[in-house]
Amino acid sequence: MSTFVLVHGSWHDGSAWNTVIHSLEAQGHQAFAPTIAGHGKGVNINVNHAQYTQSIVDYIVNKDLTDIVLLGHSFGGTIIAKVAEVIHDRIRRLIFLDAFVLNDGESLIDNAPPGSQVLFDALVRESGDQTIMLPFEIWREAFLNDAELDLAKSSYAQLLPEPYQPWIDKLDLKRFYALSIPKSYLYCTEDNVLPQGEWGWHPKMSNRLGLFRLVQMPGGHEVMFSNPVGLAEKIIVAGRD
Amino acid sequence: MSTFVLVHGSWHDGSAWNTVIHSLEAQGHQAFAPTIAGHGKGVNINVNHAQYTQSIVDYIVNKDLTDIVLLGHSFGGTIIAKVAEVIHDRIRRLIFLDAFVLNDGESLIDNAPPGSQVLFDALVRESGDQTIMLPFEIWREAFLNDAELDLAKSSYAQLLPEPYQPWIDKLDLKRFYALSIPKSYLYCTEDNVLPQGEWGWHPKMSNRLGLFRLVQMPGGHEVMFSNPVGLAEKIIVAGRD
Amino acid sequence: MSTFVLVHGSWHDGSAWNTVIHSLEAQGHQAFAPTIAGHGKGVNINVNHAQYTQSIVDYIVNKDLTDIVLLGHSFGGTIIAKVAEVIHDRIRRLIFLDAFVLNDGESLIDNAPPGSQVLFDALVRESGDQTIMLPFEIWREAFLNDAELDLAKSSYAQLLPEPYQPWIDKLDLKRFYALSIPKSYLYCTEDNVLPQGEWGWHPKMSNRLGLFRLVQMPGGHEVMFSNPVGLAEKIIVAGRD
Repeated sequence: MSTFVLVHGSWHDGSAWNTVIHSLEAQGHQAFAPTIAGHGKGVNINVNHAQYTQSIVDYIVNKDLTDIVLLGHSFGGTIIAKVAEVIHDRIRRLIFLDAFVLNDGESLIDNAPPGSQVLFDALVRESGDQTIMLPFEIWREAFLNDAELDLAKSSYAQLLPEPYQPWIDKLDLKRFYALSIPKSYLYCTEDNVLPQGEWGWHPKMSNRLGLFRLVQMPGGHEVMFSNPVGLAEKIIVAGRD
Repeated sequence: MSTFVLVHGSWHDGSAWNTVIHSLEAQGHQAFAPTIAGHGKGVNINVNHAQYTQSIVDYIVNKDLTDIVLLGHSFGGTIIAKVAEVIHDRIRRLIFLDAFVLNDGESLIDNAPPGSQVLFDALVRESGDQTIMLPFEIWREAFLNDAELDLAKSSYAQLLPEPYQPWIDKLDLKRFYALSIPKSYLYCTEDNVLPQGEWGWHPKMSNRLGLFRLVQMPGGHEVMFSNPVGLAEKIIVAGRD
Repeated sequence: MSTFVLVHGSWHDGSAWNTVIHSLEAQGHQAFAPTIAGHGKGVNINVNHAQYTQSIVDYIVNKDLTDIVLLGHSFGGTIIAKVAEVIHDRIRRLIFLDAFVLNDGESLIDNAPPGSQVLFDALVRESGDQTIMLPFEIWREAFLNDAELDLAKSSYAQLLPEPYQPWIDKLDLKRFYALSIPKSYLYCTEDNVLPQGEWGWHPKMSNRLGLFRLVQMPGGHEVMFSNPVGLAEKIIVAGRD
């Protein structure tokens, strides 16, 4: 039986994993879903990427979790890479779930397709507080493409504005790329949040991991909402020895 | 419940959709399958792309269909883009089913892989009347790759020579690209009619739509024959709000 | 009912197909799995690619097999192309199962991704006898990514060191590319032995076949171990007329 730590992506908090955790536990595993600093209602949104990393490190160390399978979703991929640099001795395997795998020295924004910067700039300006809120139309068509409209609406209602600074922080990942922790990439084949092809999740991001285990499942970017039970099964396959 | 209008591709007429329509109706939807000008037995094959578009516009206006989900298969994608320019107020959503999405100013032929022009030229010459008939071997291996030989034969027997002129007509699509109608791309993952990769349907054609909903299903290019019931289900998913 | 001849890839012998053959026979087909020269326990490993080809030609001719569907897995793809040049009149169809399709004049090594040569050189040096043995970690993560650890271990225990010379032999394939034998490419969608994308099996290798039938199934590179029954079903689909 494994111990999973699930790190959410932008606009979410740890509660995004509730049903997935329930499924993992039903099969005898332990699972935890910390909320990244700067996320959740009413918290300080003046944060940077180093604080994100520290908040997840603190969570794992405070609970004294060891031998964990550490999963990052989407933007969470940039965080688990940095967390692994700090507490690699507590990690059995890393899973990137439709997640960013940054090259050394890059930021998330460096991996956004050309043209999207115009949209981000407009959304940051609109916010007035250096955050980005995703328009519903994009959420429905690109993130929840595999779900009914009702689910797209109810999940959208749970989202909170995302601090922009950590998207532009450039990350030193030299130590990450020197680690020998086993890695898996779990790819949802209908995920079109990064447009498939030249700028897509897989194989562009995944191949940066070098030797890794590829696991695929049907679904869009937000399978923790559209298919949490199926996701839990694939997390187990991606996380086993 | 939705109203679907299904626009066939080359060599077909509206009867290609018979089983799909039956399936859509069984689930409470309305569905129509007009035959494009120049198609069907004994009609005038001296047509151009503008006449194709006009014939579908006329069908929809004459039946006074509104709030429709307009689907184009293969070459039909070039037609629904032009139809949308004329009667956008009648269209709720566009679905491209393994369909051409032309850039402004392009023809279908501009999107054929290098080398295929030699084959097309030979077939046009052979026809003697500026049409193209698909050799059975290509139909069986590339179009009906997911079906038994008997179905490949019986469906081939329904095909008619395709007028060549509309394949080379260059289309002004400026208004199409300015429309805000929601769009879906439904991709059959074994479709190899355009060879997968650099010249393939997805993501090359699909990404031209900008923001769109990606839906995928197993199957080759002619799923209306090889899996009409499964196709109807995916059309509903691609077409819902 | 068809007659299948299944040609294994590197590190294997004909016994890799035992369960697949059982499945094919259960559905009324005949199936044979020769062991390539230089493979199997205690044989002479001082071989070249021409001897590989000759050993499969001899097997088919000695058994007087005709009208066969000849399948090659992985490295076996380079062999069936050469076998087809010699005994094309005995072959009804070729199936490439996640297999190399070499361009005329190329070797397998010419199709390995940049960087992998460093690993191969080290493994050849390590062997002391011009063979390559695959490290277990690569077998588990890249070849058996879709299987449980126990199966990865038990199948690894059956592997034998692979002669290196045939990987670097350049093949004259002019006659192969002039043959009109029907061809199928059967692609397992989680196969990451050649990293997916620019250097992957499909569509890079498959498109070299020109007109071919594409068949896909879920699974990694070693589906004859991880899903032999499912593989047999897809071999039948890939091999039918």
